Amino acid sequence: MECQNYGINRTLERENLNLNPLQRGGVLPAAAREALYEFGDGYSVCDYCAGRLDEIPKPNIRGFLDDLAQFINADTVRTVHGAREGKFAIMHALCEPGDTIVVDGNSHYTTHLSAERNKLNMIEVPSNSHPEYRITPEKYKEVLETALDEKGEIKLALLTHVDGNYGNLADAAKIGKICRDAGVPVVLNCAYSMGRLPIDAKAFNMDFVVGSGHKSMAASGPIGVLGLKEEWADLVLSRSSRHEKKELEMLGCTSRGAPLATLMASLPYVMERVSKWDEYLKISRYFAAKMEEIEGVNQLGIKPTLHDLVRFETPAFHKIAQNHPRRGFFLYEELKKRKIVGIKRGQTEWFKCSVYGMTQEQVDYLVNAFHEIAGIN
Amino acid sequence: MECQNYGINRTLERENLNLNPLQRGGVLPAAAREALYEFGDGYSVCDYCAGRLDEIPKPNIRGFLDDLAQFINADTVRTVHGAREGKFAIMHALCEPGDTIVVDGNSHYTTHLSAERNKLNMIEVPSNSHPEYRITPEKYKEVLETALDEKGEIKLALLTHVDGNYGNLADAAKIGKICRDAGVPVVLNCAYSMGRLPIDAKAFNMDFVVGSGHKSMAASGPIGVLGLKEEWADLVLSRSSRHEKKELEMLGCTSRGAPLATLMASLPYVMERVSKWDEYLKISRYFAAKMEEIEGVNQLGIKPTLHDLVRFETPAFHKIAQNHPRRGFFLYEELKKRKIVGIKRGQTEWFKCSVYGMTQEQVDYLVNAFHEIAGIN
Repeated sequence: MECQNYGINRTLERENLNLNPLQRGGVLPAAAREALYEFGDGYSVCDYCAGRLDEIPKPNIRGFLDDLAQFINADTVRTVHGAREGKFAIMHALCEPGDTIVVDGNSHYTTHLSAERNKLNMIEVPSNSHPEYRITPEKYKEVLETALDEKGEIKLALLTHVDGNYGNLADAAKIGKICRDAGVPVVLNCAYSMGRLPIDAKAFNMDFVVGSGHKSMAASGPIGVLGLKEEWADLVLSRSSRHEKKELEMLGCTSRGAPLATLMASLPYVMERVSKWDEYLKISRYFAAKMEEIEGVNQLGIKPTLHDLVRFETPAFHKIAQNHPRRGFFLYEELKKRKIVGIKRGQTEWFKCSVYGMTQEQVDYLVNAFHEIAGIN
Repeated sequence: MECQNYGINRTLERENLNLNPLQRGGVLPAAAREALYEFGDGYSVCDYCAGRLDEIPKPNIRGFLDDLAQFINADTVRTVHGAREGKFAIMHALCEPGDTIVVDGNSHYTTHLSAERNKLNMIEVPSNSHPEYRITPEKYKEVLETALDEKGEIKLALLTHVDGNYGNLADAAKIGKICRDAGVPVVLNCAYSMGRLPIDAKAFNMDFVVGSGHKSMAASGPIGVLGLKEEWADLVLSRSSRHEKKELEMLGCTSRGAPLATLMASLPYVMERVSKWDEYLKISRYFAAKMEEIEGVNQLGIKPTLHDLVRFETPAFHKIAQNHPRRGFFLYEELKKRKIVGIKRGQTEWFKCSVYGMTQEQVDYLVNAFHEIAGIN
């Protein structure tokens, strides 16, 4: 048989400005590209393994995990395949089928899937109304307490630190404390925050934090981070009864290859950029403000935004689409002409985007392009 | 804080001949190295995703999965994070905690961990005795039938196609038929076979096959292959009740990045090498025969070997170690001097190794080195 042409190239990222929030935090720095070169072959990180991925001395995975734990202030850290696999493992270790957990209403779909795959019921904490969609500590407390009253026991709570729809940053420390006071272990989903902004698992009162290397930690996918408090290590990292070195929820080892090498190589770079989060945020706020100069473009979510992922309602562009010969495709096409990608084809009523990591000059170019397309230049 | 030096380089593979069987089948061809370059950034394969990883048109993941399915003759194929994650997903979908499954006695530890993580009981089919350790169809049948008599129902059976201890190739077609005749769905663990030798899921009478990209398919890890018969698709690839596009056991998407791109890029190369499996096997047999010219070096497992992974009992080297100033480390060190790695430090009583993918010249160099160290040159 003959293989099809799979088109295995990606000029998109090299030749365009990519506004897709999913793609902004996973761009590799040079050191990670070198790591990719060094550890490209399958099982490459396993040369010096004595049975535990997390204890490999060369490359120094053990030292890296210590540093990473310190960086996010968790007692223990493991790499997993992604934030979703981290959430699944926590739920799997702590809960039984039929149990109920509490999650915020801005949860990522993978939170729902992790719960459903574990056969758990979810009670959701609704966000407040349009246009803010904020998860408030007050509402979280109310829903959690009602759930406890009704169910007797809630095995786990989950909070999305920064959600992928509005880029809202939740008050982790307050909601963490609410869960702790209620005696409910709590996970913080940091897929859109760890690697972008400072994470302090202890100050946030979190039992668990999960992060995503490919989404926000300048790593090649798939790889994620699971951080936990020492008191959970025995349960979540319990060993096989037969293979005593091997951790059950990790199926022995998780990220056995290049993604881990890139996560390691990127850590110094990630620490540096996290320390400058205020500057990144400032440029995102600038972008959002400039976008709102277009009449009929309104940022949703918390204002001013607390994250680089911003969502806009864009009746201005939807109106243009009504009478444009290319209809709903005009926005995508006008942007593409200007080497701007990452907004879905056909979408004009709203979109979400991010300028994370872009320069002031690039952001000005983007703003100009949107203004031009909206006809206000 | 300051990061430690993680030593993120791997000269080992470039500067030495690596005999570690784990490393032989995951070496990337040039096309896969290019794919790594193109798709290094996190979430890079997701630019054109409409909600399903397996249906992405650019790069052409959909077309690739069709080709891969045809190549291994399975109805449907998904990528997973590795063979172990594939086994876990199958068990999770088919079994309930407390269920019993039948597995062969040469199973990889990850089979045991997948079962234990799913809270399943295992009944094991023992191999025949030293030195062959073969899993015979007769014994498989006997154990399966006894298990069915005793338990009433066996939800799943698993066979290791080629095991990682002896490199024994099991008679998949016969054992598959035994399971089918008994009405028990069966998984073939092809971690050490898919990508090295021909796999035909249908001819093997298998309901499921799992493979490992990093172990045997010239891909960057972690990535695996899950192939299944159409009749299982509804169960194993069942969709989320809330997110109707998303497959539960995949947690929505699995390998979202570079490993998938390398697996795709390597497929033509892998198909080519699989078609020449006989030549690869011939060189492994040559190597084993030459090693056995050393008195006190005996190949274990099926003879002549049916795979490149071979295990030797090496009383010859153990005897040298007794009186050597470097004791048990002498073999490792003597090999290292000759730029040969992959045998564990301190190991002299036995070792397993593979010359898969090496040239005749390289194998002759290896044989010479071992003969020299054994003092027969």
